[in-house]
Amino acid sequence: MNFSSKLIEEAVNAFSSLPGIGKKSALRLVLHLMNQDVAFSESFSEALVKMRKNIKNCKTCHNLSDTDICNICIDKRRDEQVVCVVESIRDIMAIEDTGQFRGKYHVLGGVINPIEGISPNNLNIDTLLNRIELQDIREIIMAISPTIEGDTTIFYISKQLKESPVKISTIARGISFGGELEYADELTLGRSIVARTPYRKVSE
Amino acid sequence: MNFSSKLIEEAVNAFSSLPGIGKKSALRLVLHLMNQDVAFSESFSEALVKMRKNIKNCKTCHNLSDTDICNICIDKRRDEQVVCVVESIRDIMAIEDTGQFRGKYHVLGGVINPIEGISPNNLNIDTLLNRIELQDIREIIMAISPTIEGDTTIFYISKQLKESPVKISTIARGISFGGELEYADELTLGRSIVARTPYRKVSE
Repeated sequence: MNFSSKLIEEAVNAFSSLPGIGKKSALRLVLHLMNQDVAFSESFSEALVKMRKNIKNCKTCHNLSDTDICNICIDKRRDEQVVCVVESIRDIMAIEDTGQFRGKYHVLGGVINPIEGISPNNLNIDTLLNRIELQDIREIIMAISPTIEGDTTIFYISKQLKESPVKISTIARGISFGGELEYADELTLGRSIVARTPYRKVSE
Repeated sequence: MNFSSKLIEEAVNAFSSLPGIGKKSALRLVLHLMNQDVAFSESFSEALVKMRKNIKNCKTCHNLSDTDICNICIDKRRDEQVVCVVESIRDIMAIEDTGQFRGKYHVLGGVINPIEGISPNNLNIDTLLNRIELQDIREIIMAISPTIEGDTTIFYISKQLKESPVKISTIARGISFGGELEYADELTLGRSIVARTPYRKVSE
């Protein structure tokens, strides 16, 4: 790309250093900023720097938070005895959006992946085991991706907890709601038949 | 979307206020910033604000520039007598990338579009007419989108110049290089037959 301006080139390079944004999209974003007044660019930049500087990891669950302990961990109305274990804070948002879970969370920060060099020590597993040992936790729900790495992670954690009375469950796997059988992959469809659930008949 | 942090919410809103970036992509970008150190976010923001504050419009051709007159207008090696008229600075970049044009440019800032309320007065047409009157310009090449609005704009400018000796040309329209005839739209294919060019036979 041929830039007539060094300033534009630097701004385009800044945007295109972000994931999923190429040079052309970056240029489009820069030209959009040009069409807004200076205050827009300033408040945009300020929001990002303020966020990056002040954001914290919750000391209990490793969720991103404005305070030392996050809103969810501090919320007394939520069930402390049920902890949902997730890979990233994006999963917390997705689950919160469903409105179906009123317990607490624990963010692992990824899954065990020997190929990418992610071992149990790189994840927040020790703090999870500590929580289970120290707090009165009845059940942990493993809301982890249904992949080989995810399954390995669930297996590893369950092995660490074999002496503990805590109940371990995984989120249900099967055909998506509204999904069509013929388009489901073989593994999902096969497993969903093996793990079929009994159907409650309408009582007359 | 349920945000556990106000700071993250603000940063996500900042990103998703840009065109083509939704809430989910914005969140991905914010989490990417979180994985980089603070200096990354700072230099990213600085590049944008610096660009927005210091960028200028070239006084001659309306190209974006670091200086009052842009690099292209100031370049003595380029042909001053041929001016390529484009809609936006993106088009200048695209043409410069081809390496096929060594003249000067003029950025209109859009095309005439009555539905969107863009009249000739909103475009840099008067400065183009001034340039043609005052400078020794031999030819203007209209590198404008082949749309109704683009054609209207070309027609409007040509009408303003009917007394002027300047030559007006448009960029060639037809089947793209490497394009397949059967996939070309009817209008393009029809016009490309009407506007066929003579083929020079190999001389024996």
